[in-house]
Amino acid sequence: MTQSRINRQWRLRARPEGRLRTSDLERTEHPWDDPELQDGQVRIRNLLFLCAPTMRNWMKPPEGPCPSIPLGAPVRASAAGRVVESRHSGYPVGSRLTAMSSWQDYAVIDVEKAGAQQISDGVSAVEALGVLGVNSLTAYFGLLRIGRPQPGETLVVSGAAGSTGSVAAQIGKLQGCRVVGIAGGDKKCEWLRQECRVDAVVNYRSENMQERLEALCPTGIDVFYDNVGGAILEAAVRNMARFGRIVLCGQISEYNTGSSGQGLSDTMRLVYGSLRVQGFLFTDFKAEFPEAVRDLKSWISSGAIVTRQDVRKGFDALPEIFNALFDGSNSGTLLAEIHPDAWATA
Amino acid sequence: MTQSRINRQWRLRARPEGRLRTSDLERTEHPWDDPELQDGQVRIRNLLFLCAPTMRNWMKPPEGPCPSIPLGAPVRASAAGRVVESRHSGYPVGSRLTAMSSWQDYAVIDVEKAGAQQISDGVSAVEALGVLGVNSLTAYFGLLRIGRPQPGETLVVSGAAGSTGSVAAQIGKLQGCRVVGIAGGDKKCEWLRQECRVDAVVNYRSENMQERLEALCPTGIDVFYDNVGGAILEAAVRNMARFGRIVLCGQISEYNTGSSGQGLSDTMRLVYGSLRVQGFLFTDFKAEFPEAVRDLKSWISSGAIVTRQDVRKGFDALPEIFNALFDGSNSGTLLAEIHPDAWATA
Repeated sequence: MTQSRINRQWRLRARPEGRLRTSDLERTEHPWDDPELQDGQVRIRNLLFLCAPTMRNWMKPPEGPCPSIPLGAPVRASAAGRVVESRHSGYPVGSRLTAMSSWQDYAVIDVEKAGAQQISDGVSAVEALGVLGVNSLTAYFGLLRIGRPQPGETLVVSGAAGSTGSVAAQIGKLQGCRVVGIAGGDKKCEWLRQECRVDAVVNYRSENMQERLEALCPTGIDVFYDNVGGAILEAAVRNMARFGRIVLCGQISEYNTGSSGQGLSDTMRLVYGSLRVQGFLFTDFKAEFPEAVRDLKSWISSGAIVTRQDVRKGFDALPEIFNALFDGSNSGTLLAEIHPDAWATA
Repeated sequence: MTQSRINRQWRLRARPEGRLRTSDLERTEHPWDDPELQDGQVRIRNLLFLCAPTMRNWMKPPEGPCPSIPLGAPVRASAAGRVVESRHSGYPVGSRLTAMSSWQDYAVIDVEKAGAQQISDGVSAVEALGVLGVNSLTAYFGLLRIGRPQPGETLVVSGAAGSTGSVAAQIGKLQGCRVVGIAGGDKKCEWLRQECRVDAVVNYRSENMQERLEALCPTGIDVFYDNVGGAILEAAVRNMARFGRIVLCGQISEYNTGSSGQGLSDTMRLVYGSLRVQGFLFTDFKAEFPEAVRDLKSWISSGAIVTRQDVRKGFDALPEIFNALFDGSNSGTLLAEIHPDAWATA
């Protein structure tokens, strides 16, 4: 394991307007500056990054609702990596982990603050960061703890062909729900129907959302798992059943806009429908991670849940890879591998 | 009890735009048409009507989220009245009750559908429809079952000098919360501080909501009980603490507008703050009415909760009395007495 002492970084140079452009970032390359580690810290070599839509929000100004990446700092991202220097007894040199890291070869992280998790033997980096990682945990807790669907209820998922949405939709099937998936494009809809075995799909690019939801959910939507926001959220609100629950997982339609987007105009419908709208972060459920990972592993190995990973390569391509999230060209969990390593996909 | 056989009505003639105008209604006067009662029905003589903001929504077109009053029908309203003809064994002639009724002297109601409740001995019509009625029950269930405030938490109530808001604020104090009330005008703020003993007040007419809430709630708002919506809701959303709960009781700022109002633009804040926004109707908690009335009675008789009734008189003045809700000129629960009767205020 001889490694370069050169640390490449993608630093945030300017707050993007609209989609991230490479010119909003600065690509630097320096030898380690080698600050001494503090107790509880480790230095990791990043191997694989998760590209998640929420990162676009972190690039917004600090006045907004979410933790903002400071200008000049490397772009924050979940990563799988290996410990190369350690002052945390639980994570000796050589350990493999996932944690909140950033777009650079080497990162110093505080194990607790970065939410580090050991990667178990027999689990690859792609699995740890993908199907057992943030997006799947988000689907799991959002659906089961926030949406709380009951057998026989109607669940609608937006962004249903995405990394989080497809897992939420399939967990909904396992709960005994009738599941309707909303996605953009025939290919995604076909995959949802054939592979994820949802009961019905709506192609929001070619179909009238409002009418289709009304037709497909004659008794109303009991749980709406929303990754998209905007017009899709509005259409769902108009079709909710009484006592319906709206899980606000993400609002990708609003991420490339200013800090406050289209939102949710029809608050009267929330009152009269006794509706619940609830946001959450997967980290709210940290105490339940082991149980969730156990469930996910068992569903995946039995084939009850199918997943797709879209692994792309190259440190220099990171901004371009990231943007695939917003033109819908990725298929499944979008991961960027920046170093070839035997355990990445093993 | 000799009574006129003439039945006066205020019927909805047109859907109001903006505030209700008398010309949107038709004032008619006919002898009873005397249809035969069905099993489970009673005919009541209305004595006292509750004027509630939500009635303005019922006047909107049927496409909206709430049950719309058909054109030509008398205006729907909660009432206290006396049974004058009965085909329900639980409600013999002479019984006193509250129920969903309408702006007319005599109404035929289905006891179950109209949510009829016997008025206990020793309770006046004003008490039954006011301090122990819809608005207080709404405050009780909205705060305790939806908001679920914990001792030491910060509760903010909008429309805090109103009939529902003032009860919610005072129940919040009983729960051990720090309570901030938002109201319009110095007199209302003074009453909240002096009589309802809230910890702080914001006069939304003369103060900057956003700045005042920030200053008064340094650790954020844990529970926001909202009767107003619009700009006040937006300001509160920006000041919520993590895991905060927003109780959507009403949105009076939007009632005189089109069917879909300003709403809630900052859905991203709901996601990142793990916030819950929840609508409800007091009837969702029907099974718990006896417990709620018992609690309210005990708090009122001990002086732990103070209330105000604003009782006005006259059948012909009903539209004008109703509009006092929207210019803020009422003081407390707005009730309209259409017949003098010994038990009204006894």
